[in-house]
Amino acid sequence: MTTVPAAVGEQAGALDAEDALAPLRDRFLLPEGVVYLDGNSLGPLPAAVPPVLTDVVHRQWGEGLIGAWTEHDWWDAPVRVGDAIGRLIGAAPGRTVAGDSTSVQLFNALGAAAALRPDRTLLVTDPGHFPTDRYLAEAVARQRGLRVRQVRPADLERFLAEEGDQVAAVSYSPVDYRTGELYDLEALTRAAHRAGALAVWDLCHAAGAFPLRMDDAGVDLAVGCGYKFLSGGPGAPAFLYVARRHHENLHTPLTGWSGHADPFGLAQDYVPAPGIARARIGTPPILSLLALEAALTAFDGVDLEQVRAKSLSLTGFFLRCAEELLAPLGFTAATPSDPARRASQVSLRHPHAYGLVRALARHGVVADMRAPDILRFGVNALYTTHQDMLTAAVRLRDITVAGDYDPTPQEPGAVT
Amino acid sequence: MTTVPAAVGEQAGALDAEDALAPLRDRFLLPEGVVYLDGNSLGPLPAAVPPVLTDVVHRQWGEGLIGAWTEHDWWDAPVRVGDAIGRLIGAAPGRTVAGDSTSVQLFNALGAAAALRPDRTLLVTDPGHFPTDRYLAEAVARQRGLRVRQVRPADLERFLAEEGDQVAAVSYSPVDYRTGELYDLEALTRAAHRAGALAVWDLCHAAGAFPLRMDDAGVDLAVGCGYKFLSGGPGAPAFLYVARRHHENLHTPLTGWSGHADPFGLAQDYVPAPGIARARIGTPPILSLLALEAALTAFDGVDLEQVRAKSLSLTGFFLRCAEELLAPLGFTAATPSDPARRASQVSLRHPHAYGLVRALARHGVVADMRAPDILRFGVNALYTTHQDMLTAAVRLRDITVAGDYDPTPQEPGAVT
Repeated sequence: MTTVPAAVGEQAGALDAEDALAPLRDRFLLPEGVVYLDGNSLGPLPAAVPPVLTDVVHRQWGEGLIGAWTEHDWWDAPVRVGDAIGRLIGAAPGRTVAGDSTSVQLFNALGAAAALRPDRTLLVTDPGHFPTDRYLAEAVARQRGLRVRQVRPADLERFLAEEGDQVAAVSYSPVDYRTGELYDLEALTRAAHRAGALAVWDLCHAAGAFPLRMDDAGVDLAVGCGYKFLSGGPGAPAFLYVARRHHENLHTPLTGWSGHADPFGLAQDYVPAPGIARARIGTPPILSLLALEAALTAFDGVDLEQVRAKSLSLTGFFLRCAEELLAPLGFTAATPSDPARRASQVSLRHPHAYGLVRALARHGVVADMRAPDILRFGVNALYTTHQDMLTAAVRLRDITVAGDYDPTPQEPGAVT
Repeated sequence: MTTVPAAVGEQAGALDAEDALAPLRDRFLLPEGVVYLDGNSLGPLPAAVPPVLTDVVHRQWGEGLIGAWTEHDWWDAPVRVGDAIGRLIGAAPGRTVAGDSTSVQLFNALGAAAALRPDRTLLVTDPGHFPTDRYLAEAVARQRGLRVRQVRPADLERFLAEEGDQVAAVSYSPVDYRTGELYDLEALTRAAHRAGALAVWDLCHAAGAFPLRMDDAGVDLAVGCGYKFLSGGPGAPAFLYVARRHHENLHTPLTGWSGHADPFGLAQDYVPAPGIARARIGTPPILSLLALEAALTAFDGVDLEQVRAKSLSLTGFFLRCAEELLAPLGFTAATPSDPARRASQVSLRHPHAYGLVRALARHGVVADMRAPDILRFGVNALYTTHQDMLTAAVRLRDITVAGDYDPTPQEPGAVT
C-alpha cells in the first residue's frame, strides 16, 4: 500500500519543478489535504472572489443602494464580463455577453440560429451531447416546426456533405463530457459552413481549459457556463458569443427589457439594442455575476497555450500512471491517448466507478463519475499539479487493491 | 427652510411610537443618514445576508467544493426558496420555484399558459405593463402564432365578457409600477376564468409588500422578482408560481436539464419532473439564490396583514404631507387616495421630476422617477418610518422652494 513506483514519482517531481504556471495555484483557495480533480464540474474558490463579494455586498449594495447600478457600473457587467470571457475564447470585445444559465443561452442561441436560416428544416446535434443541449434543440425545433437529427461528431462531416442542404444549424460541444475526447471545432465549423449551416458550439468543457478561436474559426454562435474551468462559483452565469457578422440580424427568442436599444426609455415596442447587448434578457444576478468577474482575474497574464501544454502534460502523465498502476486492476482509459484528441480531463472505465469515486473522496481525492462506468478526472492547469495526478492514481490503486469501497452500482447526485 | 408643520411632525412621531413592526428595521443594514424610499426598485441589504454569503463562499463552496451540491442541499434550493416565497404570496409548498430572471420566468409562464389553451388565439396584456412583460407577450405570441391585445386593467372585465372567448391568457400586474395604483387581482382573475382564459400575474411590485392569495384566488401562473420588496439583492433570482391543478399538464418552453424527472440520469429524452420542479431550467446562480434565501428570513414571524396596514399608514401619511407641503408647489398625486386602490408606493407628478429626484438624493432621500414627470416613493413597512416620509416631503419642499435642482428634463438610468 501507498508505495509509489520510483519512475513516476520522480517524473511528477521533475514536471512540477519545471512548471512555469505553478505560482498560479496561489490564485485559488484550495482546501488543505484535498486533491481536487473535479474543477470540470465546479471550479474551486478563486482567492479574488471573497474580497470582491464583500465589497459588492457591503459597500456597493449596502451603501450604494439603487445608485450602485450606475455608480459601480452593474448595468454594464453583462457585456464587461462577456468581454473578459471573450478574451479566453478568442472573441474580440463586444461579441460575448454573460448572464443566465447555459440552458437559457442555448435556447436563445439555437432560436436565433434557426431564425437566421428560415428556409431550412433541420437542427443537427450530437446523440452524446450533454442532455440539456439535446432537450433544448428539441424545444427550439418543436417551437419552430423543425426536426432534430442526431449525428455523432465522427460522422458529421460526411452527413453534412451528403444531406446538409436542409441543415439550419449544428449544435455540438468540442469536448465529450464523459470521455474527454476533443473534437475538431474548426474543421466541423468549416463543414457546417460548406453546407450553408450555422455552427453553434457549447464551450462548457472548453472555455478556460485550452485556447479557442471563435472569431478566427468563424464560429457563428457559442455558449458556455461560468462555473467549470472559469471557476466562477456554483451556477455562475453562462455566456453567449455571437459572430459580429450576425449582430444586425440577430433575433433571439427571449426579448427581455435589458436587450432593448433604450432599456430605460421603457418604450412600447421592443427594439433590439445594437451589438451583442441585444442578447441580454432580464436583470442579471449581480452577486453571482461579479463573483464570476472576480474569478476571471485568475487568468490575468496567463497564456492559454501554456495552459494547454500543461494540461496535456498532466493528462498525459495521468494516463501513464493509469497504465502502470491501474490497468492491471481492470481500469481502461476512455480518453484518447493522442494529445490532439484529448481535452482537459481523463476518464477511466471500471465497473465499480461509483463506489470507487466515493471511496476516493473519503481519501481526499475528489473526482466524479458518469454512469455507468466512467471515473472522470478533470485537470485545471492553473492549480493542478503532477503530484496531484500521481496521488489520485496511487490512492485509486490502493483502494481497489484493498477492496475498500462499495461495489454496488448506484447513480450519483452530482452536477456536470 | 426645514421648518416642519407641527401637526404632521407630531403625527409622524405618534404613528412611529405605536408601530408594532418598528423592531423589524434592525433586520436591515441601512446606511446612516439615508432615507431610502426606493426599495421597490432595489431592496436594501438585509442583516442576514452577509454572514450567509460568507458561509456559502468560504465553507460551502471553498471547502465543500462539488460535494456542496448535496451536502449543503444546493440542488433543492430553487424549490426550497420557492416555498419561502410561496409563504408570502399565499401559495402552498411545492407550487413556486425560484431562479432565472423575471423575463425568463415570464417567457416560461406565458408559453406554458398558451400551451394550456391551444385552441385560443389571443394573449391580453396591459398597455401600461412594465415593458419586459409586453415584449415577452409579443415574443411568445410570435412564436406560437397568437396575437397580443392590449387592454387597460379598468377595461379588462368588460373586454373579457364581450370578446374573451379567444383569449388564452391575460398577463397583468396588480400594481401600476408608475403610479402605484393597485388593481383587483382576484376580481380580474375571476373575470379571466369566466372567459375560459388563464390569469398570469406579475408580482414584482406586490410580493412581500402586501398579502397575496395565489391559491385561494385561483391564480393560474405568477412570476415576480426577488430584489424589490423581497430585498434579495441586485438581480436576485425571480420566481414562478403554478397552480397545483396545472402541474401535470405544464409544458414550459425552456426544457433545461434541471427540470427533468431524473436530472442526473442524463437520459436521452426530456421527461418533465413531477410537480413544480419541472419549471426548473438550468443550473441556478447559487450565490445570488442563497443570498435571496437569507434575505427572506427578514419576513420570519411577520404578519403581512400588519405589513399592509403599516404600508397604508405610511403612504396615507405621505399623501397628507404632500397635500400640505407639496401641492402648493405644483406637485400632484398620481397614486389613488383610496387605500383599497393603493399599493406600497406614492407617486407624485411634477414637470421637473428628474432634477428633483437627483437633488433629493444629494440631500439623503433616495427615491426614483419614471419619465416624464413621476417621482416614485416606495415604502417597505419592514423598515420605513413615518419620520422617513416626513423627511422626504420636507426636503422635497425645501429643494423646490429654493430652486436647488436642475430643471432640465432628462432620462434617468435606473432600474425599476
